[in-house]
Amino acid sequence: MKYNAAVVGGAGYAGIELTRLLTQHPDFTLTHVASDSNEGRPVAEMYPAFVGGTSLAFCSTAEIEKADVDVVFLAVPHTVALALAPGFLKRGVSVVDLSADFRLKDAKIYEQYYGVAHTAQDILKEAAFGLPELFPDALSRAAAARKAGDAVLVACAGCYPTATSLAAAPALRAGCYNGSGPVVVDAISGVTGAGKKPTERTHFCSSDENAEAYGLITHRHTPEIEQILGIAGRLVFTPHLVPMRRGLLSTVSIPIDQDCEFKTTEDFQSLYANFYQHSAFVRVLPACATPRTSSVVGTNNAHVGVAYNPAANVLIAVCAIDNLCKGAAGQAVQCANQVFGLDESAGLGALALAV
Amino acid sequence: MKYNAAVVGGAGYAGIELTRLLTQHPDFTLTHVASDSNEGRPVAEMYPAFVGGTSLAFCSTAEIEKADVDVVFLAVPHTVALALAPGFLKRGVSVVDLSADFRLKDAKIYEQYYGVAHTAQDILKEAAFGLPELFPDALSRAAAARKAGDAVLVACAGCYPTATSLAAAPALRAGCYNGSGPVVVDAISGVTGAGKKPTERTHFCSSDENAEAYGLITHRHTPEIEQILGIAGRLVFTPHLVPMRRGLLSTVSIPIDQDCEFKTTEDFQSLYANFYQHSAFVRVLPACATPRTSSVVGTNNAHVGVAYNPAANVLIAVCAIDNLCKGAAGQAVQCANQVFGLDESAGLGALALAV
Amino acid sequence: MKYNAAVVGGAGYAGIELTRLLTQHPDFTLTHVASDSNEGRPVAEMYPAFVGGTSLAFCSTAEIEKADVDVVFLAVPHTVALALAPGFLKRGVSVVDLSADFRLKDAKIYEQYYGVAHTAQDILKEAAFGLPELFPDALSRAAAARKAGDAVLVACAGCYPTATSLAAAPALRAGCYNGSGPVVVDAISGVTGAGKKPTERTHFCSSDENAEAYGLITHRHTPEIEQILGIAGRLVFTPHLVPMRRGLLSTVSIPIDQDCEFKTTEDFQSLYANFYQHSAFVRVLPACATPRTSSVVGTNNAHVGVAYNPAANVLIAVCAIDNLCKGAAGQAVQCANQVFGLDESAGLGALALAV
Amino acid sequence: MKYNAAVVGGAGYAGIELTRLLTQHPDFTLTHVASDSNEGRPVAEMYPAFVGGTSLAFCSTAEIEKADVDVVFLAVPHTVALALAPGFLKRGVSVVDLSADFRLKDAKIYEQYYGVAHTAQDILKEAAFGLPELFPDALSRAAAARKAGDAVLVACAGCYPTATSLAAAPALRAGCYNGSGPVVVDAISGVTGAGKKPTERTHFCSSDENAEAYGLITHRHTPEIEQILGIAGRLVFTPHLVPMRRGLLSTVSIPIDQDCEFKTTEDFQSLYANFYQHSAFVRVLPACATPRTSSVVGTNNAHVGVAYNPAANVLIAVCAIDNLCKGAAGQAVQCANQVFGLDESAGLGALALAV
Repeated sequence: MKYNAAVVGGAGYAGIELTRLLTQHPDFTLTHVASDSNEGRPVAEMYPAFVGGTSLAFCSTAEIEKADVDVVFLAVPHTVALALAPGFLKRGVSVVDLSADFRLKDAKIYEQYYGVAHTAQDILKEAAFGLPELFPDALSRAAAARKAGDAVLVACAGCYPTATSLAAAPALRAGCYNGSGPVVVDAISGVTGAGKKPTERTHFCSSDENAEAYGLITHRHTPEIEQILGIAGRLVFTPHLVPMRRGLLSTVSIPIDQDCEFKTTEDFQSLYANFYQHSAFVRVLPACATPRTSSVVGTNNAHVGVAYNPAANVLIAVCAIDNLCKGAAGQAVQCANQVFGLDESAGLGALALAV
Repeated sequence: MKYNAAVVGGAGYAGIELTRLLTQHPDFTLTHVASDSNEGRPVAEMYPAFVGGTSLAFCSTAEIEKADVDVVFLAVPHTVALALAPGFLKRGVSVVDLSADFRLKDAKIYEQYYGVAHTAQDILKEAAFGLPELFPDALSRAAAARKAGDAVLVACAGCYPTATSLAAAPALRAGCYNGSGPVVVDAISGVTGAGKKPTERTHFCSSDENAEAYGLITHRHTPEIEQILGIAGRLVFTPHLVPMRRGLLSTVSIPIDQDCEFKTTEDFQSLYANFYQHSAFVRVLPACATPRTSSVVGTNNAHVGVAYNPAANVLIAVCAIDNLCKGAAGQAVQCANQVFGLDESAGLGALALAV
Repeated sequence: MKYNAAVVGGAGYAGIELTRLLTQHPDFTLTHVASDSNEGRPVAEMYPAFVGGTSLAFCSTAEIEKADVDVVFLAVPHTVALALAPGFLKRGVSVVDLSADFRLKDAKIYEQYYGVAHTAQDILKEAAFGLPELFPDALSRAAAARKAGDAVLVACAGCYPTATSLAAAPALRAGCYNGSGPVVVDAISGVTGAGKKPTERTHFCSSDENAEAYGLITHRHTPEIEQILGIAGRLVFTPHLVPMRRGLLSTVSIPIDQDCEFKTTEDFQSLYANFYQHSAFVRVLPACATPRTSSVVGTNNAHVGVAYNPAANVLIAVCAIDNLCKGAAGQAVQCANQVFGLDESAGLGALALAV
Repeated sequence: MKYNAAVVGGAGYAGIELTRLLTQHPDFTLTHVASDSNEGRPVAEMYPAFVGGTSLAFCSTAEIEKADVDVVFLAVPHTVALALAPGFLKRGVSVVDLSADFRLKDAKIYEQYYGVAHTAQDILKEAAFGLPELFPDALSRAAAARKAGDAVLVACAGCYPTATSLAAAPALRAGCYNGSGPVVVDAISGVTGAGKKPTERTHFCSSDENAEAYGLITHRHTPEIEQILGIAGRLVFTPHLVPMRRGLLSTVSIPIDQDCEFKTTEDFQSLYANFYQHSAFVRVLPACATPRTSSVVGTNNAHVGVAYNPAANVLIAVCAIDNLCKGAAGQAVQCANQVFGLDESAGLGALALAV
């Protein structure tokens, strides 16, 4: 049995990646891809990678709101999901939301960072947080609810929070963090992370041959990382933009408790390898290896490497993901797979290009 | 029933792309990947894209020579295939050769361009030329011979010849070429085309932010293109290197016969669309569109666009392929699919990343 | 004595390159840089390369129209120069025009390609064509006129015409071309050639890792090249875009007359070396070398290489320039130097970064 | 009066950048460029950016050891400077050393990190540390000694230490650091930082479209940064490689003392602007701006931006430099200028390309 799926916001970068994954998914049939500003335009005309691969044209969001679909993926800016989700859920359509609207459990923090009121706090309360490796129970509960006949909403984690949390969680959950020193996260993203809209900054001639930090102090992923890791007020998060299309690398420096039982890089590597031993997508590299973003681009995989600095008593954990896949569309499909009782890896098994 | 396949030269760029494709192929089981200089090294250590994707380690060529395989792919420098092919064929192992050793039907031209004697001219005579869209009969014959119990050899076309010939053949076979004026081919390749060996020229800091022509007059793909298109002495082929990893674009200018029935871009577009209407991989774009290499990277697809210049009476035909896939490993798998009676597209259906 | 100079269109790519060159010029003082849409914004805020390098802010065009300047550089879209030039000339201000408005001597061809009437044909008639290596007399005459007290206008050649003509002219002027076969020009440009405006196509994620042809048949530089080289109706010009910021490579294939006295690559190399022996900026490479765009970026230099294909009787000539410098701002300064009786190289002597 | 200068190690990336700067320097005459493995090869053949710009060919190191030069720049691997410096000094030739051999004042730490004995500790003791903005007195003393007739040695700071220290020093010297929490430095370098030698990792196809951390814990610049900033055992330094040629960005997170008088980003911005108010090369950006590496490439400039995180009580300071210029060759010329009593900016005034 196949489920009907639709994508809202399909012309954006996360949306078109969803379109790619769902077009090739064994258990979902992609029936609609909406982009209100491109209604009627064939997907393959805008994105010629789809020539011969799909005959779908972009439809309107309104059309999806009336369509017979089992699940809708919302690849939309914040506030748009807030407006759309209630209607879909009421009609019994499960929602996999890639926006920020249902990620922050504390509506006040949402309102502080996004500058708008949260108008669907009942849904927020029930929403499953979509980061399966760290919150499997949330997805199990959502799957059970859906099986029982309820439409459910999954709020997928953002790209920086995903990579950062996969890097930090094993040490933090094992109690290694000293609890006080700042957890410093310096992350690097490819330019797809800045979105599809052409701007001065995303112009090739501005982005090429340039590295820069941005969003110092104020980046909206800050409270999301703090929530996932439970380190409110102790996170220092600085994102950077570099000249590549996809790929995200998060380098996390964690001050270690002086009584921590782990004393060497090898100790921490074992801790991590053990933590992710049953994961379908997270690979912990050997003690001397560091992850490369190019090794995960186009896949839902995350590569994690660790090193321990005994002089400063700090653990460095690095995680590489594809910001559009494990950091967005791939994770959404992974969550949908779980909610619909499918194999977690269904439609997500492709290997990256090796070069 | 699945066939056992092996790759010789698996650590090079074409070889590792073969490894990627065959690892995921529904009808071939990749049992061996040889790289004599990396014997024993896990594939996933050298190419971390394979972490969690394969447990194979590189073996020696000698091991494959004794192994129980149905087909061997030779992703080796010229002369190496010349040395290896006879042994495999004698043992009943079919050979899909990605080297230049069995492409040129005239051994004298081979000896002129490669500076070595051709020591297996009996095999050369029987070899099927591997460019399925233009030479389907050669592959049908090879498939029949294999079905009858013979081991066969396919000599896959090179990357520049593939893109150039897919762009030029419909017009030439329709008799549009005036037969005298030079056919000018200016082609652009990504840096994987220069091979895996680190050199001054393939250093990032030398290749980045640079475009250059190379191999003027002397490039070894010249006689291969001349042979495919039947235009010996009238080809002007200039390859260029630009800062991207994969992708090859061939721009072909064909002087048109003054009595040619086709008079407009639309006429030629129809000719081309008709020519490739049953092709699994070649897509002819609308009259106003030009192919982009990024739309085919990671796939076996070729995108072709045409435009007619009435003032100069010249047809411009442009073809984009992935030099490592349709230009090498993908085409080899496509040929193997045909030789083994499989669906031509088996294992080659993935969509390109849209961005 | 220093001359006062102003730039109109200073926020665009050619304009900001002019700003860079004139800020450091020994004989011109840059007093105004206009950008109507950025009026009041400090140059160094928009382009931080100028932090500490200039305190100028963008002014309005109107301000320059009233200012006491000796020369104005127009780095504006076509039709804007048409509107501005008459006023400046009337006020005695010489104009160095980087737009296309005064390049095509036949106003009908201008109107055909640009779709607007040419409203200043008297100026067009007097305009000096700005490609000093090929049309030195035009600039000498302009210099003499200026010395005599007239304001003059120089219409600088475009980027593709400059590189293409520098590559083709020595052979054509020596009578080597057979006169009938098409002259095929396949040129490659960096993305600055597409201008500063952020568009879908200039988005980093669209331009990166992609090569494509564009403007087939219809590119507006076609008639300009035909005019410079005198080959109307026999030019086939196809520009390409590749992922680099600056740099332009033009590969020209010229069918050679069968009675031509030059028979080898060395013959043609000597012809070219001789042709450019007194040039301040054009370097003819040795017979076996091909030009690299990265070797000229940031400079006004042009590197030219040639190779002769005896089988097809075709000369291949390749020229690399920086599209923003020798192809635009640098050439404009070179022309201004000549018009004002300065050393041709004044302010243009910097070496390129070697890596 | 002009001084004669020579470069040893001129074929490497720092060496060729020195060659570029010294070729255009008003007060130094570059008489020799040594590269033992390229002896006799014209500089312009290896680096065509120099075609028409220099007629020098690489000589041997031995030739420079006998030449009549006033200063020699050593752009050589560590241990080579150790071997060469004593001879030059003995002959009265001042040395500007770009290697690591004379940077670490504690020879034991040198021996620990570089695995060789320090055989010239007398010179080490006298060596001036070359980071003029932070250690002006060292260079003043060297200038005085040279004026008095002594040959002197300047040990120029490394690329990561330069950017990191320029970012951190104003806050640390003002006593803002809390003294205990780790100072976390995540830095990003272009691929020139990995050197000219072609390797698997510097291959275009490996570096392009990839970000990675490297040298975790063990990078040899760690003790140098600790020495400059006086934070031994409290530094966590993680360098990263991204796909650009030049440019280095260092993001430094400094835990602030709870009694620190500076409480806002604006406070810290003022502190920094004041600290660098007389600097010829360091520009402190406005409070809301972050530095871009592309704005300093090709120049000796450093751009610094700061932001204060009150929740975590951490200052983030970011510095962008060109790793080959301010991080190597430019700094060396700046030091030489000071040692020879020249204007600090002599030969270093060029503006960066704005795009």
